[in-house]
This record gives sequence, structure tokens and C-alpha cells, in this order.
Amino acid sequence: MGDSFGQLFRITTWGESHGGGVGVVIDGCPSGLPLSEDDLQYELDRRRPGQSKITTQRKESDTARILSGVFEGRTTGTAISVMVSNQDAKSHAYDHLKDLYRPSHADYTFEQKYGFRDWMGGGRSSARETVGRVAAGVVAKKLLHHWDKIQTIAWVEQIHEIKSSVDKHTVSENQIEASIVRCPDPEASFAMIERIHEVRKSGDSAGGIIRAVVRNVPVGLGEPVFDKLTADLAKALMSLPATRGVEFGLGFDSVTLKGSEHNDAFVIREGNIRTSTNRSGGIQGGISNGEDIDLRIAFKPTATINFEQDTVNRDGREVKLKAKGRHDPCVLPRAVPMVEAMINLVLVDHHLRNQKTQI
Amino acid sequence: MGDSFGQLFRITTWGESHGGGVGVVIDGCPSGLPLSEDDLQYELDRRRPGQSKITTQRKESDTARILSGVFEGRTTGTAISVMVSNQDAKSHAYDHLKDLYRPSHADYTFEQKYGFRDWMGGGRSSARETVGRVAAGVVAKKLLHHWDKIQTIAWVEQIHEIKSSVDKHTVSENQIEASIVRCPDPEASFAMIERIHEVRKSGDSAGGIIRAVVRNVPVGLGEPVFDKLTADLAKALMSLPATRGVEFGLGFDSVTLKGSEHNDAFVIREGNIRTSTNRSGGIQGGISNGEDIDLRIAFKPTATINFEQDTVNRDGREVKLKAKGRHDPCVLPRAVPMVEAMINLVLVDHHLRNQKTQI
Amino acid sequence: MGDSFGQLFRITTWGESHGGGVGVVIDGCPSGLPLSEDDLQYELDRRRPGQSKITTQRKESDTARILSGVFEGRTTGTAISVMVSNQDAKSHAYDHLKDLYRPSHADYTFEQKYGFRDWMGGGRSSARETVGRVAAGVVAKKLLHHWDKIQTIAWVEQIHEIKSSVDKHTVSENQIEASIVRCPDPEASFAMIERIHEVRKSGDSAGGIIRAVVRNVPVGLGEPVFDKLTADLAKALMSLPATRGVEFGLGFDSVTLKGSEHNDAFVIREGNIRTSTNRSGGIQGGISNGEDIDLRIAFKPTATINFEQDTVNRDGREVKLKAKGRHDPCVLPRAVPMVEAMINLVLVDHHLRNQKTQI
Amino acid sequence: MGDSFGQLFRITTWGESHGGGVGVVIDGCPSGLPLSEDDLQYELDRRRPGQSKITTQRKESDTARILSGVFEGRTTGTAISVMVSNQDAKSHAYDHLKDLYRPSHADYTFEQKYGFRDWMGGGRSSARETVGRVAAGVVAKKLLHHWDKIQTIAWVEQIHEIKSSVDKHTVSENQIEASIVRCPDPEASFAMIERIHEVRKSGDSAGGIIRAVVRNVPVGLGEPVFDKLTADLAKALMSLPATRGVEFGLGFDSVTLKGSEHNDAFVIREGNIRTSTNRSGGIQGGISNGEDIDLRIAFKPTATINFEQDTVNRDGREVKLKAKGRHDPCVLPRAVPMVEAMINLVLVDHHLRNQKTQI
Repeated sequence: MGDSFGQLFRITTWGESHGGGVGVVIDGCPSGLPLSEDDLQYELDRRRPGQSKITTQRKESDTARILSGVFEGRTTGTAISVMVSNQDAKSHAYDHLKDLYRPSHADYTFEQKYGFRDWMGGGRSSARETVGRVAAGVVAKKLLHHWDKIQTIAWVEQIHEIKSSVDKHTVSENQIEASIVRCPDPEASFAMIERIHEVRKSGDSAGGIIRAVVRNVPVGLGEPVFDKLTADLAKALMSLPATRGVEFGLGFDSVTLKGSEHNDAFVIREGNIRTSTNRSGGIQGGISNGEDIDLRIAFKPTATINFEQDTVNRDGREVKLKAKGRHDPCVLPRAVPMVEAMINLVLVDHHLRNQKTQI
Repeated sequence: MGDSFGQLFRITTWGESHGGGVGVVIDGCPSGLPLSEDDLQYELDRRRPGQSKITTQRKESDTARILSGVFEGRTTGTAISVMVSNQDAKSHAYDHLKDLYRPSHADYTFEQKYGFRDWMGGGRSSARETVGRVAAGVVAKKLLHHWDKIQTIAWVEQIHEIKSSVDKHTVSENQIEASIVRCPDPEASFAMIERIHEVRKSGDSAGGIIRAVVRNVPVGLGEPVFDKLTADLAKALMSLPATRGVEFGLGFDSVTLKGSEHNDAFVIREGNIRTSTNRSGGIQGGISNGEDIDLRIAFKPTATINFEQDTVNRDGREVKLKAKGRHDPCVLPRAVPMVEAMINLVLVDHHLRNQKTQI
Repeated sequence: MGDSFGQLFRITTWGESHGGGVGVVIDGCPSGLPLSEDDLQYELDRRRPGQSKITTQRKESDTARILSGVFEGRTTGTAISVMVSNQDAKSHAYDHLKDLYRPSHADYTFEQKYGFRDWMGGGRSSARETVGRVAAGVVAKKLLHHWDKIQTIAWVEQIHEIKSSVDKHTVSENQIEASIVRCPDPEASFAMIERIHEVRKSGDSAGGIIRAVVRNVPVGLGEPVFDKLTADLAKALMSLPATRGVEFGLGFDSVTLKGSEHNDAFVIREGNIRTSTNRSGGIQGGISNGEDIDLRIAFKPTATINFEQDTVNRDGREVKLKAKGRHDPCVLPRAVPMVEAMINLVLVDHHLRNQKTQI
Repeated sequence: MGDSFGQLFRITTWGESHGGGVGVVIDGCPSGLPLSEDDLQYELDRRRPGQSKITTQRKESDTARILSGVFEGRTTGTAISVMVSNQDAKSHAYDHLKDLYRPSHADYTFEQKYGFRDWMGGGRSSARETVGRVAAGVVAKKLLHHWDKIQTIAWVEQIHEIKSSVDKHTVSENQIEASIVRCPDPEASFAMIERIHEVRKSGDSAGGIIRAVVRNVPVGLGEPVFDKLTADLAKALMSLPATRGVEFGLGFDSVTLKGSEHNDAFVIREGNIRTSTNRSGGIQGGISNGEDIDLRIAFKPTATINFEQDTVNRDGREVKLKAKGRHDPCVLPRAVPMVEAMINLVLVDHHLRNQKTQI
């Protein structure tokens, strides 16, 4: 259980890093949306390992195939099945991990839950699972653009201790994609790349923060009680691997303000009801208020490092683990399209749920 | 839609601050659990306004009635219905709010979504909605204690700029309840109470941070993909009013550590597999690892203040709002039982989902 | 689990025949629908025991109270809670049933599932549970009428061996309500009433068939795969107590026709695409085709009879049961509003699901 | 929406008769179950067109591939993805159907719902969609056998007017498979085959009745209110193409019995509580009572026939349709494994839901 996400726009992902492939079935996409395999490929390439010299050097071509739900170039209204085949895996590369638990990985918890585990490449807990999410996110992105020109844009705000300075109102996808670390502040981008090279050389890893804004959000997305837009976005983002926290608007910093300092006054701007500030991050009472949604997600440093580490094996004995082979020193550049995908999936779902709220 | 929470232990809350009452229907509670109205009352009293001089002085007695699902003192396995009647409301106290939107409240977004709103006391977006959550949380708490002596404990860690120092390993419910602000650090508790008095006097409000730990957690709660324990807890907590962020383990602070500094080494302790540190906050790969769950939630300062504020009215004209009457200067002491309830609801749900994961 | 029904228009019922009351929470009703307690009362009175001399003589006044979700006479878009209090029950009337299992009742299966049971009046398996369904059905009926003037009409087609002859195209609610057995064929109605008197006098019971038609159905309700309109209606109707079968259009009789005899030819009538016959009962490929929905439900004879019967007790010994007190000789007249309610609940749900099927 | 079925054992099917293939993702299968592609193939071959001279002669080899969720021959506890590739389709074979609506098919309703349709082979409304159900049913069947040796067995009871006589207590899978029409009464089987040849020759089609029994059912499957076992089985079976009705135990025939004639007396047999008769079909109050589940499903005659038929085209004009090519004169022999699959899917789901009903 738990391989599905969403209520009206519901995706089910499947697949391990080793095996026939990975994929997703998308249930609830309206009919008539133009959709091609090329649409999917662009985002899958942004997620792909080996796309630049700072990500993991494991090569995956990740070619998407649409198996159902599209007829003569348009969605039919029924289940869209997307598959990405796995390439030949060197199973022996994982032999040394078979009988022990990598620190801060899902190895131990997964095995305790299910009695055994697919020890090749992390099984279902592999980041490769997110291929299906990113593919489904493309469909969501196209729907949001079609309906209201809603645009979700995410970037790397911080890597390790290196912070960036970005104007969230003007930053564009092109500026972000111009940086291989997906940080649109050129100076910070340069320093981040340096830092990633350093941690890679030392066999270590670094975490960071991804920031996202959503523009052109209609008023009214989100439900007032449990399915607040903040709540559903938090779940979506915290379901990504390596996430440790999420905050909206001023987030944790809001606690040092008083109410009189934090409230967003309503004003009339160009004939519309707007707020003079946006400390709420575009969501009030769990429902979008038409301002930009603004959020941040913390990613811990990747657990796989080329250090000798203390751990235990399946026989319950303390042993040393020395990881072999290439490792991904920093997941954040590749996590940017994952973050955008999860946000878009939530927004489409709430857009569909927001039909017929009034008789 | 969106008045229900949970999959196997599913609650549906109902009710507004004005009207017949508020309540909850609990679907999925196993049979045989001893349950009385007194059990519910203790936690409802912790949530109740007017319980101490630092909360809102609005009086609500909040007497719980169990209407179904309990027979001869034990749950029957079918729907448990709990109701708390509302007391007579002075509707004219809200007349001045009828036609305008309170800044950073749900007034505007709710009305845009549904076409009109229950302007008396916030309607469904009122904090009074959480009565049902807290009542259901009692049932969850009792189940968790019955199964594994799982114990969830939450306290106020920070109010405005006042931080506390608490040993999370030893802090007890009694220590927390000894403070009316529910902060078990006596010095900080004293300063927090002072600060709350200050903001109340000035008509202002303060936010803060609640911290929670869960002890005696079995290994294996949580699903590896979308329904990670972190993800479901994040959704649960971000569905509470006024929340702005959530983090697990080191949370946002984890980003400045390297992998070699952040990983939790596995060790053997008293014959069991444990971790030497707990930077992961008890959850790895979305699944509990048996260490204490450790998390923090940020609450913004309450939106209702006794200040003159700029806003707009339903006719789209800019007006001044001067809130009248008593206001709640700080919601955090009362939010402690809400946080515990939401955590317990998630844990029970995952406990039930964790049956029969192996043939 | 299992106390909720529906996806977008979702109801959760609660309550036993003994205890505080019975009720329902309705989640997903659009805002703006006029709704009053009087609206509910009319249908609850049609469901009520003791409404005529041929139903059970147990008196229940069944007064509905709307506790939430309605403001100034209109639905608010949030959870609608309806409660009907129970009247004082004579628990000793059930003492002789406490330790044995009534044949063809849920006593035995319920107790095996949950370890014990509410032996007073059948607990959750009591027909009293349907109070909440009927109340929710009123809201559904009003929505369907508001949207498309969709009208669901059900009547008793057969009691025991007595069949009626009714023109399904013209039969009206008034004609049905003119008969206390809810059969609009006067001759059959008379004979059915006689038959019910007979079986009551002999302490026995009778079953029968309810037929329902739905008029003004828009084309397109129902989903093509699992959530076919036939499938969801079948589940809804088979979840009513004492049902044994359901069929659509020609139903079981269709099997003796050949395809050339059974197919409904498409024709143009008054400029619209229609079918010349309606052997499909208004649903093709699981989706409504605009013709009247036409279905039949079989109800077995009531299990409670005033006969001495063989059974076993909780100690696993064979004993004799002699039921005491009044019994309901035939549930069908009261089941008519239950059938209508379940059909209307399914139609509203699919109406809401049918929004935005195209971009 | 609507491509998923089940709550704890949840399947999502995808695919059209033309396109990349068809398949299913199975979410919620416990880990440790031995599963191979050969296991799937046996049942897929029973469902396959062209398996005998009385089914449609369209050839589909239907080779199953397991793409995920199985590691070293056992299920891992995560999503199992199964795919069956489509073979090259002759799209021009459907050209004459492109612009008109086949009587009693889903063509018209589907197109009205979604704005257009995949006119090649019926799209998502094709019987080919059931490939995924049958594959998932194999997993369910294996789980049921592993847990309690639960055995579901279905056969053709009637074709057109030809009825069979079968002892439901002793009939075996081998006896059923010995007949190409899957009727274990040799005389009736012979007559049925003759009748199918006749209708095929005349370009016509025939419907019929499938009967199923389930043996070794534990007491307690099913929920007492909406998710009665009867209700969920009815939905499952009515979601199969061409179904028109379903009944349990005596079904529609129960209405002509009185309560005293219909009730199943409880008795002690071999130390266990059993019923002396089984008119209830193994389910009382929606919950299994340990007796064999006994049910019947009516299938209408296939809509595709080689007759000239009246219909209308997309321009709203009345036209003649003369279907070309081979047609399937009777779907029932191939529907037997579909019926078994749907029953097994429901039973596994309720088996999983039945964990932890008591504390």
C-alpha cells in the first residue's frame, strides 16, 4: 500500500532500480490534452543522473514510452501508462551491501517491515522511483498551463552553507537552467559547484534547500479542514527522498513576529482584492488567496558516501561499511524537477476538486 | 470534501463554532477498547479556551457525549460518534465582521471558494473544529498505549523570541502540565507567560514552536513511497490552524552538515539494532527505525488582534477593521493537545496498515 | 471500517438502535443548496416504523436535527451533520437474545468478527442504521433536482407471490404513496396488504421485489472500467439490509434473448440521439445513455419471525429460539425510500465525478 | 478516474485493445509470496480469445511480463507491475466504425462523456481491459490459498435457454476445464456448444449465467454497513463487461419463500457452528458465516453481431451498420476466469481489512 498519490488526479508509481523498469499509471486526466513522449522526455532529462559533471555519474538514458491513454496525440480520459525501461544492471556492484544496513538508508527499516529486501540499488526506496512522479508531473504541468497559465518554478536556494540571493518575483526557468546546479544566482551557483566538487572528492555529500514559487494561482484551491493546500503540499514534498522539513511563506521565521507584524493586509490592486504583503506564502486558512505560493524544502546530505562507516549486518553484528563506486555528492540539482512535479500534482488534484463547490 | 482524515483509522469531523455543536465520527477503531466520556474530557479540557489566564477568555465547557460505537464500556468495532454541544452564541458580537475580510484569516479565501460564508466565529475554519480531532486523538492514544506503550509527548519549545531548554529524553507529561504555557523549562515558561501578557495587553499576538517526541515506536511504521511516516505526519500537522512549517530530526539544520556528519551509525545496544545518534528523528526512508520520533512545528502569530488594520470589504472597497472583544494572544498552549492528537491519529493508522505486510 | 459511502459526495453513518441516536455526516455537498429539517423529515417519515398498520408497530418518531453545515437556510459547502436521537429503549426486551444467535441474522457473523456484539436490537446491523442514509438521500435528491430535474422513483413490484402490473413510464410518486404498501397497482396493492396481514398473523414474514426508475438522466454518468454506474448502483443497493439480488434492464431475462433481439438500436428522436428500445436499462458500457435507468432489487423475507426456531447459543449448544414481541412482517414498504436514497447518493457522486472529464 | 479497484489490495488497470499493451499495477500485496510469470500465464490463457473453436477467433498470445515487485521469485511488498504487449493491430479493420455508434456498445456513451473516443477496438471499454484483472486475480488466488486454502470456482450454468445441472458441492476445476464451454454438465455442455455454433453461423450472439462458489471461507469477511461482502462482490462482478444482474444464495427466488421457509437454522456440526441449510449463500448481515459463498451472474448476449442494424452516426443521422469480420458469439467461457478473478480480489481485500478488528 502507499504507491498511489492524489484523489481525483491519482498516480500510481511502480518499479525498482533493478528489474524490468519503472513507471506510472495516471488516473483522472481529462480527455483532449495534447501529450507526446517528447513532452515527458524533457523533464525526465532534467531528473536524470549523469546529466552534468556534478551529479552522480551513473548513466541512465531514461527513455519514456506512453503505453496507453493517448490516442491520435491527445489524452482519452482513461488511464495513462508510462514506462521507462531499466538498462542492464551490474548486480555484483551491490554484493557487498547485501547483508548489511547502510547508515541513514532505508535498508534496515524496509527489511524489518517486509522481511526481506531488494538489496540491488535500494529497491523501491531508490530515487529511481521518482521517474514516474516526474513523468506524471509533466501531465499536471500541461493541464495547469492550459487552465490558468499556472506556473511552478523551483530552484536551489542553498547548498551546504552557501546561500543564494534570488528575486523570487522575476526569476525565470531559463535563468535556473543556465546553472548546472540549478541556482539562478551566478555567484552562489559558482560557489555551490565548487563545494559539490569538494565533497565529492572527499567522498562526502551535501544537502541544501530548494525554494519554489507558483504563479497565477487562482483563489480557492485547497479545502478548509484536513486537505488544506499547505497540508497536501507538505505531504507531497515530504514524500520525496531525503527531505527533512518544509515551510510556507515566512515559515519558521514567522514565530519571531507579532500578529501586527505578520498579518497580510488586504488591498485593492488593479480592481482586484490582493494582499499588500505575502508573508502567508499565498495560502490562508489552507486555501490559496491568489498571491504566489512560496515554500522551501530542506534536503539532508545524501546518505551514500565513500567513507568507512560503522554499521551492523543482518546477523546483528557490528561491522565496517566502505561504500564502493561512484556516489551522488548532492541530490539537489536533480531534485528540482521532482519538487516541481509534486507541487503540480497537488495543484491539479485541487483544481479538479474545486469544480462544483457551489451548486 | 476534505472533512475526513486517515485510511484505516478514519475520522470525519463536523461542526462550526456557531450552530448545534461540533463532533467527530471515528471509523475503524478495533472492538474491545475500554472507552468512556471521562477519557475524552481530560484531553478536551487541555484544548479548551479559558483554561488558564493566558489563553482566550471565551468560556467553552466542551462536554463530550459518546453517541455510538461503545457498548457496556468497550468499543464495538463500529463507528464511534462523539458530540460536543455549542453553547449559546452572541451572534451580534460578529456583526462588524460580516461584510469584510480579516487579514490573514480564511474569510476571503473561504468566501471565494464557496460563494458565501458562515461569518459567525469563522465557521468551519474556526479552531473549534479541532475539538473532534482531540476527541479522536484520545481513542488513538489509548490504542497506541494498549499495543506497544507508544507515548507521544509535546510541549511548547519557543514563544516569540523566547526559547527553552528541555531534555527531550526525560521530559514528562507532568512537567509539561505543571506549566500553564506547557513549557517544561521553568525559567522559559515564566518568561513566555510574561511575553503573552505583554502581547495581550498591547492587543497583539505571538506565535512559536511546538516540539514533539514519540517513544516506544516499533520498527516498520510508514510506507516506502508516498505514504512515508514523515509525509503523513507533515500533512497531519500542517492541517492544524496557523501552522507554517514542520521538520523532522535536525530538519532545516541538517543542510549545513555533510553526509559523514549527519548519518546515524547502526550499533548493537542491549542486543538490539539501534542507532548511535538520532539525527534522522526516528524515521529513515519514510519508515520508523525504532528510535524516538522527533519533530517541530512552527505556528505563526494568531491573525486576530485588537489593532486597527487595513482590509477590504465584500464590495471591494478598502476599509479599516478594528477587532472588538477578547482575543487569543497565543494559541500554542492549547495547540499542544492538538499536535499530540494528530500524531497519534497518524501512528494508529500506520499501525493498522502495518498488519500483514508479510504473508 | 466501512461506515462511509461515496467518493466526492461521501456519507458516514453512525449509531445503533440502542444508544444516543443515529446519524450521518455528509461530506462534499456543494454550498448554496436550500436545506431544512423539514426536508429531511418527510423522507424519514416514509422510512419510519409504525407509519401504517402493515409495518412493524414499534414506534419511532425519528425527529431529524441538522447540527452543522447549514447557515441561514443554505448549505455552506462543509460537513453536514444530521442526528436523530433514540428514544428510551426497553433493554430487557432483548434479554432472551443475548446469548444465542438468531437464524439468518447478523448476530453470529458480527460476534465472530468483533469478539462481542451489541445484542440490543441488532446493534450496527439494525435497519435503524438506514436513518442516516435516508437523511443523506434527501440532500442528494435535492441536488439532482436542482441540476437536471433528475427524478428517482421506486415502488413495490412484488410481495411474496403477488406480482403487480405498473406502467413504468407514467407511474408517479403520488400513485405510489396512495398505497400503504407502496405498490401503485390498486388490485395488487390490496392483495399484498392481505398477504402481509396473513404472514403477520401466523408470525411469519414475506420478501419481495422493489423496482426503480430514474428519469431525466444526463448522458455520461458512470466510469468505463471499475466504477461503472451499474457496478456502483449494485454495491449501493446490495448494502441495504436483506437484499439478495439486483438486475438492470432485462436483467436475468436478457440471457434468453439473442444479440439481435437484445440490442437497442440508436435512432434520432426530436433531434436527439436516443434508443428505440431500452433493454439496457439506461446504462451502456457502464455509462448512462440518457434513457431511463431501470432496475430491480430482491429482498428476502425478514429473518425475525415469531416461530420457534432451531439455533445455537454462545456456548455452542443447540437451543430453541422463540422470538417475543412484535415483528416486522414485511420490510418492503419502508425499504422504498431507502432504495431511492441509495440510488440518489450514487447519482450525485457520479454527477460530481463527471465534472471536467474533458479539458 | 475509476481505473482502480480495492482498498487494501488495490489494483489499477490500464491499456486499450490498440496501443502499446494492457496491464495492471497491484498495490498492497504482502511480501514473501512466490510469484512467477508462468503463474500468470495459466489464467491469462483461460481468458484469451482464440483458445477454442467456440470463442472469437481473434488471436492474442497475451504473454505476461512482471516488471516490478518481485525479487528472487517472491513478492517484495511493493507495487507489482504486470504488462501484456499488444500485437500489431489492423486499424483499417475498424474504419467503418469510426463515425457511428454500435448499438448497445459503449461507443456513444463514452464519446459523449469524453468528447472523443479511441474507435479502434472499443478503446478502454474493450474486454481486453480485463487482462489486468485476471493477472491480478492470480496473485489474489495464491494469497487466498496460502492463508486458508480458500478456493473460488466458477462455471457456465446456462447459455441462452440451455440450463445445466451441476452439484455445486462436488464440482471441480478439472471437470469445468474438461468442457470448452466451461460447463461441467456433459450433456448441457454439448448442447451449449451446438447453440454457440448456431448463433455464430447466423451472425448472432448468446448470453447466459455464470455460477460461482467459494469454499473454505473463514467467518468474518465483510463489513456490517456499506462494505458488506455481498455489496463489494456485486460491485466487482457488475464491473465486468456485459453483466446485467447478480444474486446471492436463493437470490430472486427467495422472495417467494416465507421467513420460516428461508431462514438457515444454526446447528453444531463436528463441533463447529454451522447452518443446516445455505439459502443465504454464505453471507449473513454482509459478513461471511463460514458456509460456501454461492452466487450467480447474468451476462447479456454480446452486442457485436454480424447483422445489419439501425443506428446513428456522429453527425446525428440514422444509418445502417453491417459489422464486418469475426465476432465473439458468446463471451461466457472466457468470462469464467474473469469472474473468479473479481471474486478473489474482493476476498483478499476483505481478508486484509479483517486484520485487527479486535484490539
